[in-house]
Formats: sequence, structure tokens, C-alpha cells
Amino acid sequence: MDDDALLIDRQPLPDGVPARLGEQLRFLAEADKLKTVLRASLLAAADRRENDAEHSWHLALMVILLAEYADQPIDVGHAIKLVVVHDLVEIYAGDSPVFVPGAADDQAEREMAAAERLFGLLPGDQAASMRALWDEFEAAVTPEARFCKAMDRLEPMLLNWLNGGGTWEMPGATEALVRAREAGVVAGSTSLGALTGLLVDEGLRRGWIRP
Amino acid sequence: MDDDALLIDRQPLPDGVPARLGEQLRFLAEADKLKTVLRASLLAAADRRENDAEHSWHLALMVILLAEYADQPIDVGHAIKLVVVHDLVEIYAGDSPVFVPGAADDQAEREMAAAERLFGLLPGDQAASMRALWDEFEAAVTPEARFCKAMDRLEPMLLNWLNGGGTWEMPGATEALVRAREAGVVAGSTSLGALTGLLVDEGLRRGWIRP
Repeated sequence: MDDDALLIDRQPLPDGVPARLGEQLRFLAEADKLKTVLRASLLAAADRRENDAEHSWHLALMVILLAEYADQPIDVGHAIKLVVVHDLVEIYAGDSPVFVPGAADDQAEREMAAAERLFGLLPGDQAASMRALWDEFEAAVTPEARFCKAMDRLEPMLLNWLNGGGTWEMPGATEALVRAREAGVVAGSTSLGALTGLLVDEGLRRGWIRP
Repeated sequence: MDDDALLIDRQPLPDGVPARLGEQLRFLAEADKLKTVLRASLLAAADRRENDAEHSWHLALMVILLAEYADQPIDVGHAIKLVVVHDLVEIYAGDSPVFVPGAADDQAEREMAAAERLFGLLPGDQAASMRALWDEFEAAVTPEARFCKAMDRLEPMLLNWLNGGGTWEMPGATEALVRAREAGVVAGSTSLGALTGLLVDEGLRRGWIRP
């Protein structure tokens, strides 16, 4: 993808669109690119990799249905905002697959630069509020962000389970790395952490994860 | 897709998962199928059709960024829930493309049956709350539902604009049908309705829409 070309430049908006709305639409058009950022995870429903937009939607649905398992009470509406926004920077920074050695080496720098560029398309107030949502998710300090991080770890584990291995069988995957992902679930939800413990234990027993 | 087989049946959960959580995960696994339901719309960022999960995610982002244009104040967190849930029944009922004559003929019946079956996978309380969200969206009476319907109409118009025609150029598309979609935006937001008016007028001028 040519990182320098905005999608909106392909078909500039007609005359008469107010400036603020034009900036918002420029960002919303660019956001279409999230549908082309592929993750390592395979879907359960089709034989292809998942993209970031689908993944973000799945997390939103999980937040709605699993919020009762958060260790601290969460504001569900606010939590959904966090997951809708959490991967947007990957439009420019790309996905950093956890089981590919070295893939995350300069991830923080890449994502910081991407955030500046992407959120900078928006009017100032919204650039700041979107950046604040992304920062909150990344810091994983608030109850909502901790729970959303847990969903972000749990969803690929569920896909791996349904696929009978999935990314757990990648060359770079080890039990230690899988257990570290499990810890991210435990940090937001004791009961969902117990679930991932069951999935990982059974995955090891079946040979889907290398001990 | 074999409608009779649940995705979770391919790989039943391990022993020890509590019954309620098991039902929730059964539903969340089945939801993966929304990523395979194709819409008529083409993406702007890639040469392929959009799927329902990506579309639902895009609407959620639009709700966050365009809520200020709702004609009545809306609860953004609640509105995002509506768009996350609004197309789930298409897992069993399929998409009903607006510019394909006859495609929507038995849509209401198909979707009602799909809702029974799909939401019925959940524990009773959540089956009811998900069904209530879907019913609210469909009825388009609350300010949130009206605004979400407007987003559901606006998003494909934005994709059509970026693609220089898109589904506006389908054999079944007419100015009257496109104007009827525009009315759905106006019903939730006067200012975004004015925007779609500009896009449609200019689309007609450029020959992307047949008068």
C-alpha cells in the first residue's frame, strides 16, 4: 500500500462540504484501509486470515457479552470505543505478529509515528480524543482498558481453539509465549483467565502447542 | 455455508467450562461467520467486496466521530452497541442488496427466523437483550437507532463516492432508489443528509447514477 496517498485524494469531496466534516470524512475514508491489514490469526468460518477491522468488531461483540466477567465493573459503552479504535494505527504501522521473532522490535516507534499521522487527519479536538482512547487502551491501567486487552488476547485463542491449533502451531510459538498471552487475559478477568488456562492446557495435551 | 452446523461443534469446548460461559462462547464462535457475509459494496482500499463484520466496525467508528451531527442528542455508547449487533442476523438470513430487484422480498421473514435461531444460542437474559438491540435498530424510532440507520445508509455512499460509482452503477440502481437511501440519512441527521445530497447530485452529474 502506498502510505503517502490518502484514499480521499483519489476522489476529492465535492464543493460545499463544510471544512470540519471534510476532515472527518477524510479520516473515515482512510480508515477503510484497516480492512486490508491482515493478522496472523485464521478465521474459524473461512480458510483465510483475519483482518484488523473484523477483529475489532469481534472484540466489540465480546465486550458486550462478556463484560460480566470483568474483575472490576466496567462502562461497556466506553470499553467498546477502546476496542473500535485500538488497532487503527496499524493502518500505517502494520500488524506485529506475536509469534514472529523480531516482529515487535520497533513496534512502539512505528505505532507512535502512525498515530501522529493518522489521528492528525482529524479536527484538533477529535485528534486528541481518539489519541486519548488509543493511549488508554495501550496503557491498560483503567478497568475498561484492562478488560479490552483481555478480549484482545482471548479472541485469537478462541480462533486457535476452533481451528485446532492455528497460530499456536507457528514456528515461533512456544508454551512460554502462549502462557504470556494467557496472562493478559488473567489481568482483566480471573474467570476468563481460568477459561484460557483450560484451552491452553488442553491445547498442550493435544499437541497444538509445543511444550 | 452449512446452516445446520455450529462452528463450535467442530471443536467442542474442553470439560470444566461453566455452562453459561459455554453458551456465550458458542454464540461468539458462531459470530465469526459474519466475516464471510458479503455485501454488494466494494471497499475503497482493496478490489473486493466488503463483509458485514468490517461494515459494522466502520459504522461504529462513524458513530464515534459523527455523533455531533445527530438531530437529537444520542448516547454514543448505546448507539455503538446497535451498530455492532445490527447485521448479525445476516449470518443465517444473508445480505439483501438494495439494488438487486426482489432480493428483499422475504427479507423480514428470513431475518426474523434467523434472529430466533442465532440469539437463541445465548443464555436467556442475553438472548433477550441482544434481540432488544436488534429490534430497536430495525424500528428506527429512538434517536440512537435513527442515527445508526443514517450511518448504515451513509457508509456505502461514501464507498461509492470513493470508487467513482460502485453499487450506484449496478443494473438495478436508479436515481429513485438512491434518493430513497439518501432519505434514510436525512431522517437521522439534517447536516449529513445535506452531505449525501451533494454526493448524489454530483454522482448524477458525473454519470455514476442513472437519472
